Amino acid sequence: MSRFSIAIHGGAGTITKQSLTPEKEKAYHKALEKALTAGHQALINGGSAVDAVELAVTLLEDCPLFNAGKGSVFTSEGTHEMDASIMDGSNLEAGAVSMVKGIKNPVKVARLIMERSEHVFMAGPGAEAFAKSMQCEFREEKYFYDEFRYQQWLTVKGTDVTQLDHASEKKFGTVGAVACDRKGNLAAATSTGGMTNKKFGRIGDTPMIGAGNYANNQTCAISCTGSGEFFIRGVVAYDVSCLMEYKGMSLSQACDEVIHHRLKNIGGDGGLIAVDLNGNIAMPFNTEGMYRASRNSEGHTIVSIYQ
Amino acid sequence: MSRFSIAIHGGAGTITKQSLTPEKEKAYHKALEKALTAGHQALINGGSAVDAVELAVTLLEDCPLFNAGKGSVFTSEGTHEMDASIMDGSNLEAGAVSMVKGIKNPVKVARLIMERSEHVFMAGPGAEAFAKSMQCEFREEKYFYDEFRYQQWLTVKGTDVTQLDHASEKKFGTVGAVACDRKGNLAAATSTGGMTNKKFGRIGDTPMIGAGNYANNQTCAISCTGSGEFFIRGVVAYDVSCLMEYKGMSLSQACDEVIHHRLKNIGGDGGLIAVDLNGNIAMPFNTEGMYRASRNSEGHTIVSIYQ
Repeated sequence: MSRFSIAIHGGAGTITKQSLTPEKEKAYHKALEKALTAGHQALINGGSAVDAVELAVTLLEDCPLFNAGKGSVFTSEGTHEMDASIMDGSNLEAGAVSMVKGIKNPVKVARLIMERSEHVFMAGPGAEAFAKSMQCEFREEKYFYDEFRYQQWLTVKGTDVTQLDHASEKKFGTVGAVACDRKGNLAAATSTGGMTNKKFGRIGDTPMIGAGNYANNQTCAISCTGSGEFFIRGVVAYDVSCLMEYKGMSLSQACDEVIHHRLKNIGGDGGLIAVDLNGNIAMPFNTEGMYRASRNSEGHTIVSIYQ
Repeated sequence: MSRFSIAIHGGAGTITKQSLTPEKEKAYHKALEKALTAGHQALINGGSAVDAVELAVTLLEDCPLFNAGKGSVFTSEGTHEMDASIMDGSNLEAGAVSMVKGIKNPVKVARLIMERSEHVFMAGPGAEAFAKSMQCEFREEKYFYDEFRYQQWLTVKGTDVTQLDHASEKKFGTVGAVACDRKGNLAAATSTGGMTNKKFGRIGDTPMIGAGNYANNQTCAISCTGSGEFFIRGVVAYDVSCLMEYKGMSLSQACDEVIHHRLKNIGGDGGLIAVDLNGNIAMPFNTEGMYRASRNSEGHTIVSIYQ
């Protein structure tokens, strides 16, 4: 049996010991552990990497602690607009969705786009119509309401300021998962509510295949979180894959090169999670912290927040 | 003075001598020549690569022969939704816009997003609001109307069929330009009306930095045209750049590897135009034809349609 593994993240940024109460820190650990265990169990049961990452991201979307699905930040119009993507490394198929409202689990729509449509990327009301045609679960606006996010938004409502998802700290609240299954297939999934008070239909790196999300059985599966504009300009997720494929770097070498040098050189902050076809895991970030967790086939587990 | 050059395209696909009347062939040649000459003249006058590609693409958008700006295809709702992007290889800044209606020159909005906003990618009504705030030119629906496109749409209206932009031939009608200016700066711009009868808010590769458009002074500037979903999955534009940077391939080697092997292997059709920092030009495609033209600092000119 070949090695399998899974890694997840719940965002990176200025996350320090001082900025979290012990209760909140415990809550984050518990939520990460829950999503990780569910995804890992799927792999134990012989589920595909695509199944595992979809399941883990669904649980992170359902948890209001993270800025994705329930708990998404408020746009400048007081609504929630969400993005998600998924990629199957075995065939390079991909699905992505952007600017959708009311959908309980955007990552599930991304998977349906990948598997049930001839397209890769859908957005806005058109994407919502596709989700409806596929019987996806919708929720009323109040389902997505979170008091903390609302208070965040009130501090910048009516101004031109857009904000990362924590007012008191600089934090990128995207969630994501990457996995290598028993057959050596890789997959990656990413989901986000974007930036507080965002307007002009801003789209970040999350739904952009190659930027915020990428998977290829020959190299690696990657899910990113950070200052999205820089991840787009650096084509970050695919860059890791290219350094492995074209320069022969290992997973950890390629991840470090991209996060600590290439991304940093253009001014980008954030991190990523990655697995390769041997089940190796890397979770580099160039910020103070990143909500992250991983577990391999031997059961070796990491659940961590700070550097 | 270092060498400078510009290349443009008006789409690739099943374009054969038999499928074009001599009049239509002449009209395409004339339109390509006009956009090429304008962009080339901008470079002669010391204009930047960004200026040259924006100008050339603006002229292609204004010409109803091409599926971008005026002449864009019809969506399933009988409207025109356009995408565009631009990238400056000197600083890796980029701008992209998707799903916008009524904007005369989407490429100009992409440039304004790059230079006047903190974002890279905007879409839908939000992007239109940004364009209005920047005093971009808007046009009524009838400006975009083209009898030929309308007849194309009527053949599939009300069905689930989406179509490439020529009913009688398989053609991808994106337009684009790449340039290397006198200072050795590179830039790329791409613009499209997408697929006839498209729905579900489908977004193709054109506004996706790394997929349909990319520029980096260290390597090359690329604008793609083809089956967008495959160009997204292959991260085609950035792939050419990575083969040059990480494997040391020349521009033409990298372009051939991507268009004739890597893209072909996943089932993708289309082509791209490319320039490198020495002013070299490549215009590979794996279809019967591609509307294309190029001119370098010595005045060497190519205007061509078929293989």
